Amino acid sequence: MIVIMDEGATELQVQSVIDRMMEKEFTVHRSTGRIHTVLGGVGPEDEIDPVEFEVMDGVKECRRIVSPYKLASRHFRPGGTVVRVGNVEIGGPRVVMMAGPCSVESREQIQLSAKLVAKAGASVLRAGAFKPRSSPYSFQGLGEQGLELMREAADANGLLVISEVMDSTQIPLLARFADILQVGARNMQNFSLLRELGKLRKPILLKRGIAATIEELLLSAEYILSGGNYDVILCERGIRTFESATRNTMDLSAIPVVKKLSHLPIVADPSHGTGRRDHVIPMARAAVAAGADGLLVEVHPDPDRALSDGAQSLRPEQLNELMEQLRIIAPAVGRAMAG
Amino acid sequence: MIVIMDEGATELQVQSVIDRMMEKEFTVHRSTGRIHTVLGGVGPEDEIDPVEFEVMDGVKECRRIVSPYKLASRHFRPGGTVVRVGNVEIGGPRVVMMAGPCSVESREQIQLSAKLVAKAGASVLRAGAFKPRSSPYSFQGLGEQGLELMREAADANGLLVISEVMDSTQIPLLARFADILQVGARNMQNFSLLRELGKLRKPILLKRGIAATIEELLLSAEYILSGGNYDVILCERGIRTFESATRNTMDLSAIPVVKKLSHLPIVADPSHGTGRRDHVIPMARAAVAAGADGLLVEVHPDPDRALSDGAQSLRPEQLNELMEQLRIIAPAVGRAMAG
Amino acid sequence: MIVIMDEGATELQVQSVIDRMMEKEFTVHRSTGRIHTVLGGVGPEDEIDPVEFEVMDGVKECRRIVSPYKLASRHFRPGGTVVRVGNVEIGGPRVVMMAGPCSVESREQIQLSAKLVAKAGASVLRAGAFKPRSSPYSFQGLGEQGLELMREAADANGLLVISEVMDSTQIPLLARFADILQVGARNMQNFSLLRELGKLRKPILLKRGIAATIEELLLSAEYILSGGNYDVILCERGIRTFESATRNTMDLSAIPVVKKLSHLPIVADPSHGTGRRDHVIPMARAAVAAGADGLLVEVHPDPDRALSDGAQSLRPEQLNELMEQLRIIAPAVGRAMAG
Amino acid sequence: MIVIMDEGATELQVQSVIDRMMEKEFTVHRSTGRIHTVLGGVGPEDEIDPVEFEVMDGVKECRRIVSPYKLASRHFRPGGTVVRVGNVEIGGPRVVMMAGPCSVESREQIQLSAKLVAKAGASVLRAGAFKPRSSPYSFQGLGEQGLELMREAADANGLLVISEVMDSTQIPLLARFADILQVGARNMQNFSLLRELGKLRKPILLKRGIAATIEELLLSAEYILSGGNYDVILCERGIRTFESATRNTMDLSAIPVVKKLSHLPIVADPSHGTGRRDHVIPMARAAVAAGADGLLVEVHPDPDRALSDGAQSLRPEQLNELMEQLRIIAPAVGRAMAG
Repeated sequence: MIVIMDEGATELQVQSVIDRMMEKEFTVHRSTGRIHTVLGGVGPEDEIDPVEFEVMDGVKECRRIVSPYKLASRHFRPGGTVVRVGNVEIGGPRVVMMAGPCSVESREQIQLSAKLVAKAGASVLRAGAFKPRSSPYSFQGLGEQGLELMREAADANGLLVISEVMDSTQIPLLARFADILQVGARNMQNFSLLRELGKLRKPILLKRGIAATIEELLLSAEYILSGGNYDVILCERGIRTFESATRNTMDLSAIPVVKKLSHLPIVADPSHGTGRRDHVIPMARAAVAAGADGLLVEVHPDPDRALSDGAQSLRPEQLNELMEQLRIIAPAVGRAMAG
Repeated sequence: MIVIMDEGATELQVQSVIDRMMEKEFTVHRSTGRIHTVLGGVGPEDEIDPVEFEVMDGVKECRRIVSPYKLASRHFRPGGTVVRVGNVEIGGPRVVMMAGPCSVESREQIQLSAKLVAKAGASVLRAGAFKPRSSPYSFQGLGEQGLELMREAADANGLLVISEVMDSTQIPLLARFADILQVGARNMQNFSLLRELGKLRKPILLKRGIAATIEELLLSAEYILSGGNYDVILCERGIRTFESATRNTMDLSAIPVVKKLSHLPIVADPSHGTGRRDHVIPMARAAVAAGADGLLVEVHPDPDRALSDGAQSLRPEQLNELMEQLRIIAPAVGRAMAG
Repeated sequence: MIVIMDEGATELQVQSVIDRMMEKEFTVHRSTGRIHTVLGGVGPEDEIDPVEFEVMDGVKECRRIVSPYKLASRHFRPGGTVVRVGNVEIGGPRVVMMAGPCSVESREQIQLSAKLVAKAGASVLRAGAFKPRSSPYSFQGLGEQGLELMREAADANGLLVISEVMDSTQIPLLARFADILQVGARNMQNFSLLRELGKLRKPILLKRGIAATIEELLLSAEYILSGGNYDVILCERGIRTFESATRNTMDLSAIPVVKKLSHLPIVADPSHGTGRRDHVIPMARAAVAAGADGLLVEVHPDPDRALSDGAQSLRPEQLNELMEQLRIIAPAVGRAMAG
Repeated sequence: MIVIMDEGATELQVQSVIDRMMEKEFTVHRSTGRIHTVLGGVGPEDEIDPVEFEVMDGVKECRRIVSPYKLASRHFRPGGTVVRVGNVEIGGPRVVMMAGPCSVESREQIQLSAKLVAKAGASVLRAGAFKPRSSPYSFQGLGEQGLELMREAADANGLLVISEVMDSTQIPLLARFADILQVGARNMQNFSLLRELGKLRKPILLKRGIAATIEELLLSAEYILSGGNYDVILCERGIRTFESATRNTMDLSAIPVVKKLSHLPIVADPSHGTGRRDHVIPMARAAVAAGADGLLVEVHPDPDRALSDGAQSLRPEQLNELMEQLRIIAPAVGRAMAG
């Protein structure tokens, strides 16, 4: 921890800060500069809030120097993590496509979806059985039955299953049917849920909250990792900004930033990131070009009749077209498309 | 619903949109302007996503015209809602102060807190028994024991109790000890939790998420109201912006905006809104001047030794000073301070 | 300057950073912690960009410790600055009201405005002669003639004049007619303009840009101060956020933050901050309660017929009502309303 | 224009709105729905502010339906604009690289830069002669001499010149030396400058302001176009958000959005967008994959010794590596790299 004193801080003020640091069990190194006195402290940084010191008289600024996350940091595994599920590797040399409809709507719809997704070359079938909706009056998903239908359709087409878990009570059910459990953006800081997922031994795809910093995303991953579940996949899906031309603003620079700070793989979800089918394809290409380890994309056999998120679901032929383009782009980043 | 066609949209494009609207069971009124054709639709707006139409060829924009929330809208109760708990009224002519430490730390600490809070003239004791923390390594609260200690301290000082509920499983416990259940900013869109709280018959204080629009806050309130629980108090506690000089940016204009759109009372939490003790007092005054129905403020008998959020907790004498100032300000908005 | 090395940075990496710091003429103090090596540097911080060091191998973070602004900092004048113009003091014990229409539209309109503004107890007449408009097709102001009319109306009613300067070429004209020159939010970082205003000997009201941090606002003030013009008044007028219920989000916490960091007076402009007449009054009250040294408010004798910004202009009776309320609030912060 | 009345608006309120619309010379169409009355108006939308109607009693919302920009809209030139300068085409089938140092520092530095830029296959040399700096104490550029040196270096290497114009008085100078004049993000709404540039007959590269919406960017382009200068190139260079891991957040979705709304070409500037050399390459690749018509990239023969922005300047070999990767990516979007 570093405390920078105000220009003009009195000796008494400096001493109070030193006393407080020692009381909190920090070893203090004092360095008196021409303008500012700087106090370096070695001690239990996790347990203090820097603002505690910033509100003291004569203090200009207080900064932690140790990362608040440890297991999620690149330093913990410099070589990077590859999450293996079945014969799919996320974070390895191949870029993985996960695709499917927003929600499971019926056996026919999910069967058709699985078939087209497999044919396009994707490895994982995505779809929601439980849907978090801003309005209490919207379609809320098929629940357990949806999971069964999804599993059946995936198995018939050699695909893995990813689906969202909305709270702790749903974990056993999801764990029974899905290969990867997805934590939605709204739950990124649902710490009770994260803690329970840390006890599971299945991969978790953790979506960045729309107002979450990258540091907070890594701290949420830390909750899962610290429970002993090391198979965490991060997902960029757009942040909230002042721009309203798109539903969210995809922060693709999060991809290289995460690659530098953490060993965890990161994928991108351009469907939620843009909210509109016509912007999904350019942003999916861009994500792979930026170095994403995979994509999560919504596709529907008949988007005009989808019960949810039809506007952001690709048509079947668009998924094929996108895969073609990604096969051209992946080699530019030294990779290939899986499938 | 209104669909505005592009300048230059073809008749075929207009027809496709009309067909699609009718298929979704809208009655369509067409109005052909000099530049734009506009289609008005009366029908099941709740069930459609305007973007579905915006991605159609020739469409410039599609807008809902009916509010997505109904029970939360001012129109539903033009006179406004007063939430009554014991002898306290929130949303009435008196401005209510809810104060207390961030967390219950010990019997002594919460007893001291309750005494000073009551003495200052506050009506409700606030404190956390379960703490949502960004880092898995931080203090997580005393749990049930904390609630017991808090109830005891409040009762001894004639105060009501407000405390945070973090997930559905905690509802019975909280309902046993607290008079008002608080939903934290991170849970504002935890729809499973909101739905369960709709079944309760105790007041809920719903905090605005740091990236939530006012419309989304009202939609979350709607989840609770639609379950039959009409005693919802909204709370502005700062939104996330680019400014980093304060932890969050308090959006005090949310107060007059909510007053116009909704009948629900709204209070402000300047402690979380600013994150620093020295900014809490000015923002607390500002919130009352802007028309807030109450305040939620952190105070601690000895903030320098608080286990959490010490930096944003007022010292006891500061709470007294603030109450003095608020007693001057409240009459400017035609009100008085309760207590 | 402080450079924090990565956990696991090699000795070679540490040495490269030290060499680079010395090359940039910093004296380096090395402190080797249990986890991180920290390098403190005393030297020409103004001339370096911390990111230069952050992109070096093995560097976790680099921070300046000296404020980038000097003349604008509280330390430079701990007692605070009072800007004196005529018999008006901004930053003193009295809260100053500056009011008037968005633009000068005609002699009659500005005369009526000045009269009502003076009668309500305001000290300064505000109005625009040159209008920056987002659309090239909107009303752009009366120019020099507008300034003449404004001066005449202000003089007849014992008011001072404040008006906006849009570029350097307009300075002599503005300086001839106005007592205070206003720099609009869009020009907050028009450094050529700021530099020229530093040479003037008239007070400048500098509005915060809608995407400017408080630090950047103070840096822009520094441009003016460093030219020798010490009479700078800052103005909070709303920042851009994701919330669209109001045109901008007024960041009232900027008021206590600026008071701590700087000696310069700060006023608030709730008209531009909210964009709607019905929200101006609550936010004006809130700004004074938060400690603002004054207000800049739009009022129009007949807002329904205003050529610009009618929707955010108060009606004459509303200004009177607001002044009444402010006279109640000001004593809560140890002040009184001027006039 | 469309005015949506509140649920429960009275007939009197509806009539006042209609009267006001007619007074403003709109033809009004009334449509009475089950819940809301909707008033459609055909008339001079450019001259009204929708909020004028929104503040009237009984009004829920007022929306313009006609785009506030005309010449910049896709409808004006459905086929798209190709800006031609010398033998370079921006907006055509080839993706154009513009590269060079942040500032001209010396003859040797700019000569070396031009050589490496040309060798890598770029078409345009970028560098600043006048630098807008947040701090008055930073390096401000070489001015006219810088432009001369830049022109000389570009000519010797068969490159075009692009450089920033900071205010109207600099236009003649810039027009003499540069092939393309760049308007910086801070000047995107400097309307005096835009108006003057509309009279010029040289291409303008207009950077998006860090807090500007895409609509505002197009409105600023409209200022230039409406003066008769049709050669406008837009540039995405990052917006300001809450995320602080990168200097700005590049909004790459602006690329497909602009392509849909406007006929103007759009390029991306990943150097300013990210602020760090190590993130420039991934974001440059992503921009081309998203459909950008070109890139503006900082490169320096010796970034460690650059006088400004060294941290975000690529090393010479990195520019070559990037060009290699872009040559792989461009065909995925049906294009090739120029040069």
